[in-house]
Amino acid sequence: MAKIAVLGYGTVGSGVVEVLSTNKDSIAVKAETSIDIKYVLDLKEFPGTPVENLLVKDYDIILEDEEVDVIAEVMGGVEPAYTFVKKALLKGKSVATSNKELVAKHGPELLAIAKENHVNFLFEASVGGGIPIIRPLNKSLTADEIMEISGILNGTTNFILTKMKNERLDFDTVLKEAQDLGYAELHPEADVEGYDACRKIAILASLAFGSHVDFEDIHTEGITKISQVDFQFAEAMKMEIKLIGRCEKVDDKAFAMVSPMLLSDTHPLSHVDDVFNGIFVQGNVIGDVMFYGAGAGKLPTASAVVADVIDAVKHKGKNIIVKWSSDPKVLMATEEIPVKAFARFADTDEKIELVESVFGSVEWIEGVEGHKGFVTGEMTEGELSTKLVELGQKGLVIENLIRLESKVA
Amino acid sequence: MAKIAVLGYGTVGSGVVEVLSTNKDSIAVKAETSIDIKYVLDLKEFPGTPVENLLVKDYDIILEDEEVDVIAEVMGGVEPAYTFVKKALLKGKSVATSNKELVAKHGPELLAIAKENHVNFLFEASVGGGIPIIRPLNKSLTADEIMEISGILNGTTNFILTKMKNERLDFDTVLKEAQDLGYAELHPEADVEGYDACRKIAILASLAFGSHVDFEDIHTEGITKISQVDFQFAEAMKMEIKLIGRCEKVDDKAFAMVSPMLLSDTHPLSHVDDVFNGIFVQGNVIGDVMFYGAGAGKLPTASAVVADVIDAVKHKGKNIIVKWSSDPKVLMATEEIPVKAFARFADTDEKIELVESVFGSVEWIEGVEGHKGFVTGEMTEGELSTKLVELGQKGLVIENLIRLESKVA
Repeated sequence: MAKIAVLGYGTVGSGVVEVLSTNKDSIAVKAETSIDIKYVLDLKEFPGTPVENLLVKDYDIILEDEEVDVIAEVMGGVEPAYTFVKKALLKGKSVATSNKELVAKHGPELLAIAKENHVNFLFEASVGGGIPIIRPLNKSLTADEIMEISGILNGTTNFILTKMKNERLDFDTVLKEAQDLGYAELHPEADVEGYDACRKIAILASLAFGSHVDFEDIHTEGITKISQVDFQFAEAMKMEIKLIGRCEKVDDKAFAMVSPMLLSDTHPLSHVDDVFNGIFVQGNVIGDVMFYGAGAGKLPTASAVVADVIDAVKHKGKNIIVKWSSDPKVLMATEEIPVKAFARFADTDEKIELVESVFGSVEWIEGVEGHKGFVTGEMTEGELSTKLVELGQKGLVIENLIRLESKVA
Repeated sequence: MAKIAVLGYGTVGSGVVEVLSTNKDSIAVKAETSIDIKYVLDLKEFPGTPVENLLVKDYDIILEDEEVDVIAEVMGGVEPAYTFVKKALLKGKSVATSNKELVAKHGPELLAIAKENHVNFLFEASVGGGIPIIRPLNKSLTADEIMEISGILNGTTNFILTKMKNERLDFDTVLKEAQDLGYAELHPEADVEGYDACRKIAILASLAFGSHVDFEDIHTEGITKISQVDFQFAEAMKMEIKLIGRCEKVDDKAFAMVSPMLLSDTHPLSHVDDVFNGIFVQGNVIGDVMFYGAGAGKLPTASAVVADVIDAVKHKGKNIIVKWSSDPKVLMATEEIPVKAFARFADTDEKIELVESVFGSVEWIEGVEGHKGFVTGEMTEGELSTKLVELGQKGLVIENLIRLESKVA
């Protein structure tokens, strides 16, 4: 029998308790031993719940209990999660976490401590909720060099974009509705400004490149500027607007970015709608693969945490090696990143020549009344910025700009 | 350094050689040792190729060489693959295979022999080509009870159906073109009659249920009866026609089937087009996940074989447990399987009452000249058959029938 502790009895924590109870028998078969929750750490009381007699407020009780082999950390946030997890690993306890902030900031250090102590630090649930992506990257795509990962990594923004498109509503209206439904936070910046997707792509990029990508190095834009006019142009282009976190190798360099993107409707991510997430991976031999599922939510996320707990139980005393060194991965400067973009401005026919004098030949997108749109050729972000400044100096105000996924047919 | 042998220098075999050469350095990092090919078994000669000095015709040379730790079996077919693989495992060599016939027929026996001999029998490439699906089922979705697996498991038929739809061509024309392109065999029955998909869903169902599903127990229909009229009805219904291999739990029973199905355009599999495969999995806690990628082809399939070789090298002397007992899984009789179906007949208004007298209230599908179509309510396959016979006896000839995926919104 394996004894575990759950840190935090919030949404995911209560999900972990539920999953371990619901599937107790099948989990015991797969873990080759039964898994019992000995403690739940939370400062609140939960009278009448299944955990009321398991609750402790003092983390040291868990830490000092040698019976506890595995800790599920589902509190979120860097502190006190970081301190708790580090202490657990140093005490020879494995940790399964859903905490993307923790993993993005301290992943390589915690992996190294786990290795030294012959235990495991597992974080399948930190990206894509229940979708298996961390383990496939580490264990399945090992014959490949990963050339690109592009993901719809945030369910809240994908719900908002899907609803804006289908119901022709503006951002603020849909955000309000998402907040009422509990899909978006009262302070929605982490989602709508792309910060959540940024931490997740930093984790995926670190695993793809094998060295540490600092999320603070990643140029990140959110979806707050997207409007109905953009969806009208997207429809005219037979494309979809999605918030994409991506990293790519370019020759011997690499970049990462989070921004809204226009995807062709043949791109596997283009049909990933509502709160679902999708993660597209391109390997140099496997070609294109995609992983799809619920990117958040109580039970899907708990499913991934519990799968990691099972793995930790099965690998007691044996570290599963994960290639994520603490050496910083130096990314390309934002200005060097290749880009192809759609831009639009208020309809003034006399500006067509101006645009072409600055951008050369562009593809004009017709069909949206009161606006003109065009798609640039391929250039660098630096060149794009310079040209946009030049347009501004010459009196043309660009209303919005959205990058295009141009690699995949 | 690990030494391996490759059995068969056909499409996949030459892919395995290419992948191990192309990604030699990154593979050595992930396997924690370099992987060298010592032998390639093939009866032909391949002068001027990278393997010309590695070729052997006598399998015993490989079997008796204690330096060879892992064998990649990529010959296909049950014999002599079965004999070769069994001997290898008994000699303490791990095997990675892409051979679905072998795995579907002898999977549990070979897994048991591998376990007894502290080696591994790995078969990621046997389903879905490069798509990671076997390892995620065994290692990632362990917190879940698998309720359903539905897959587009055969790239050839998916290519044919996609082309029939997009170019409004009939089956025979597209099959001919697929044969000319090398996507379909001269004798295409294994693909177009669903036999290939049948073996693959038998493997997936066995892993989902943990006991052996005999592919011969699975009711299997192919795509040869699908015509342009069906695609016109599908368009009117906003649905897609796909060849689906599926297995589902129904209370404490389970069934498996291969047949064309109509999928709603919100179903994650509905946008899996061309030669791509997609595998949809529903767990009782994770909800819906899908895995997408190239389901066949030299390099994608080789990528999965090599990933298994790497896993075998890393787990030298240690069996990775796979739950697939040789106990036969008794499936529901075909007549008991729940079904909802679309059926069509030559347009004769006077038959509407006849259909409703037999099926009760049905949903009529309009918009296809010269034909009438309807969607039945939910019933069993047995009830459906009885009603179709009754219609026939009363003089109504059903031109074609396609089942509907009705569970997923």
